[in-house]
Amino acid sequence: MSRFANTPEPPYYAVIFTSQHSGVDQDEYANMADKMLELAKTMPGYLGAESARDNNGLGITVSYWRDEASIANWKSHAEHVEAREKGNHKWYDHYELRVARVERSYNGPQHKAAKP
Amino acid sequence: MSRFANTPEPPYYAVIFTSQHSGVDQDEYANMADKMLELAKTMPGYLGAESARDNNGLGITVSYWRDEASIANWKSHAEHVEAREKGNHKWYDHYELRVARVERSYNGPQHKAAKP
Repeated sequence: MSRFANTPEPPYYAVIFTSQHSGVDQDEYANMADKMLELAKTMPGYLGAESARDNNGLGITVSYWRDEASIANWKSHAEHVEAREKGNHKWYDHYELRVARVERSYNGPQHKAAKP
Repeated sequence: MSRFANTPEPPYYAVIFTSQHSGVDQDEYANMADKMLELAKTMPGYLGAESARDNNGLGITVSYWRDEASIANWKSHAEHVEAREKGNHKWYDHYELRVARVERSYNGPQHKAAKP
């Protein structure tokens, strides 16, 4: 499966979540992260997500949404609220969350085959 | 050094660059990536960057800029143009680049110490 989000033409929204994992309960964390991704996919206005975490526990997840209302709706989902509580209390040493309006986009390299 | 960007209050801009590394010339790539980051820091309007690449070569780098003009200026820098050429020809199997206007932000966890 491609790890790139198949987003439409802008405008749309991006939630940029950068986090430093504490190292606590990594298996439980991985399970919860998978579960949240599956749940997000069922939400109205969800357009996709991209995620990478390095060996030092620094991760960036960007999820893409049709509009601010879709983001607000996802933020209020009960299971997501519960997951964030755990994130706040044990999984994350620090995080930064930014909500941004995507205005333009392009991809490449031009000479290579399309998205893997 | 903190791996979180110390960005100001929004609005400002984010360049979200998601890439799949080809695995070719990884040392040369790492050197170039470091060099580009150092160069970016000297550019007008640069506000910071966050970056993570996982063991499968999928990476996300988000750089933050004061405005669109700062991004355009950085894009046209000769050394950056040269680095992108190499990226296009050997380092990246695929990439997606999105330019977005950050509209709001917050961080956490609230009960933990400030940014590491």
